[in-house]
Amino acid sequence: MTKQELIAQIHKKQSFLCIGLDSEINKIPKHLLKEEDPVFSFNKAIIDATRDLAVAYKPNTAFYESRGVEGWNSLKKTIDYLNHLEEPVFTIADAKRGDIGNTSTQYAKAFFEQLNFDSVTVAPYMGRDSVAPFLEFEGKWAIVLALTSNEGAFDFQFMQNAENKQRLFEHVLEASKLWGTNENMMYVVGATKAEMLQQIRKHIPDHFLLVPGVGAQGGSLDEVAKYGMNADIGLLVNSSRGIIFASEGKDFAEKAREEALKLQQQMAGLIS
Amino acid sequence: MTKQELIAQIHKKQSFLCIGLDSEINKIPKHLLKEEDPVFSFNKAIIDATRDLAVAYKPNTAFYESRGVEGWNSLKKTIDYLNHLEEPVFTIADAKRGDIGNTSTQYAKAFFEQLNFDSVTVAPYMGRDSVAPFLEFEGKWAIVLALTSNEGAFDFQFMQNAENKQRLFEHVLEASKLWGTNENMMYVVGATKAEMLQQIRKHIPDHFLLVPGVGAQGGSLDEVAKYGMNADIGLLVNSSRGIIFASEGKDFAEKAREEALKLQQQMAGLIS
Repeated sequence: MTKQELIAQIHKKQSFLCIGLDSEINKIPKHLLKEEDPVFSFNKAIIDATRDLAVAYKPNTAFYESRGVEGWNSLKKTIDYLNHLEEPVFTIADAKRGDIGNTSTQYAKAFFEQLNFDSVTVAPYMGRDSVAPFLEFEGKWAIVLALTSNEGAFDFQFMQNAENKQRLFEHVLEASKLWGTNENMMYVVGATKAEMLQQIRKHIPDHFLLVPGVGAQGGSLDEVAKYGMNADIGLLVNSSRGIIFASEGKDFAEKAREEALKLQQQMAGLIS
Repeated sequence: MTKQELIAQIHKKQSFLCIGLDSEINKIPKHLLKEEDPVFSFNKAIIDATRDLAVAYKPNTAFYESRGVEGWNSLKKTIDYLNHLEEPVFTIADAKRGDIGNTSTQYAKAFFEQLNFDSVTVAPYMGRDSVAPFLEFEGKWAIVLALTSNEGAFDFQFMQNAENKQRLFEHVLEASKLWGTNENMMYVVGATKAEMLQQIRKHIPDHFLLVPGVGAQGGSLDEVAKYGMNADIGLLVNSSRGIIFASEGKDFAEKAREEALKLQQQMAGLIS
């Protein structure tokens, strides 16, 4: 999906909501366990209940890999389903990969060719040649970790550069933005540090930001929009557990829709 | 495998060789493509030809994921085979994972429970809670990226901390060594910067180091041993392409053994 197509979807749906399909088998409603592929059945129901409210879906690969070949099959079915919706959605493999060049190319093939995701999240520690291979696929995106939403973000990401006083996450932004364009790169910026978005926008005014941490992790949507929104909207705000695990009962999809709707309505207000 | 068991294997085999099973399907000998699972057949032949010479095997997950479910099956068969050798070997899932806590736990389950590897490589960018879950599995190891062997290592890993002039990779060593012990953590340190090993040993005298980049990437084994060896040997030196792709013909396993033997003999000299 191109940047223009994504922006069009955001305006059409009046939403910049991304739903995280962190579909841990131990947390999905018990009545689904009798299905042939419980996790795919769960994802399909969540997608069907929210597809008019969300512009993006983001399975985190960890929750699939932990089930081995079976999990990989659930992931494959999920992305195939997402790729055949009537209204296109932006798909994110939240995989946080990154390796030396020829190896990153293999990861890019895994997520862009084998599974046909629009984008994959990438860890920056190994530098340019670990990210660049993801940028060589037409119409695909690398979403680079800049500032994450977890406590451990403070361990290294705020380390200050002796040379120019930039913090590591700023150095990552400044260096990596030259590797691609705002049409094939986005950045992960955690919502738990919404006021940081103002500074981040100085480094990358035009890139889309993928913002996790709204809801369960405590970030505020209003703050994220206030500091992070740009003329293109420029935001994908993710919610995972707050939506997909809103109920453990047979009404899980209905309750997921209710939670997604609350966010979408708030977003519609922020867009206009 | 425990640290003591690993050290015992190193002395028994007179080797600290790790063989990287970067078994890209397009690079394995063509005559194997008629096999039911060409990549597993390839790995099995390489393992059988080298198992008395290597103490560790390291499949890089990218080369398996790029083939989707089939690739994951090849990986599963490979680790099962490695786990049933008469003489135990140390197994490394070179996956470079790392995510927020509950998600890293899922990755740990994938590699320690689903696939039963001894260890997994972990990217440090997201800090403590992204690494700690890998340390909670009895008898298992996290191998944290410190200084990688690629060109992109210079993009961020050498950034100097304004506070104490430590570079990022040193800061990673100093912070992360407190998260576990030298009995459940190792570090990746690229051999292309062998002289750096002397400094690295000041930060972590007792940890095992996984050293990629000998051979194809240009590092010298003598230099690595000179600067990196400690009283426990404390090194696993990896070679991938130089061994596994030594020949494209039917003699690939034999040629792989020849290359592995050269390294093992050199290592025997360095051990004694």
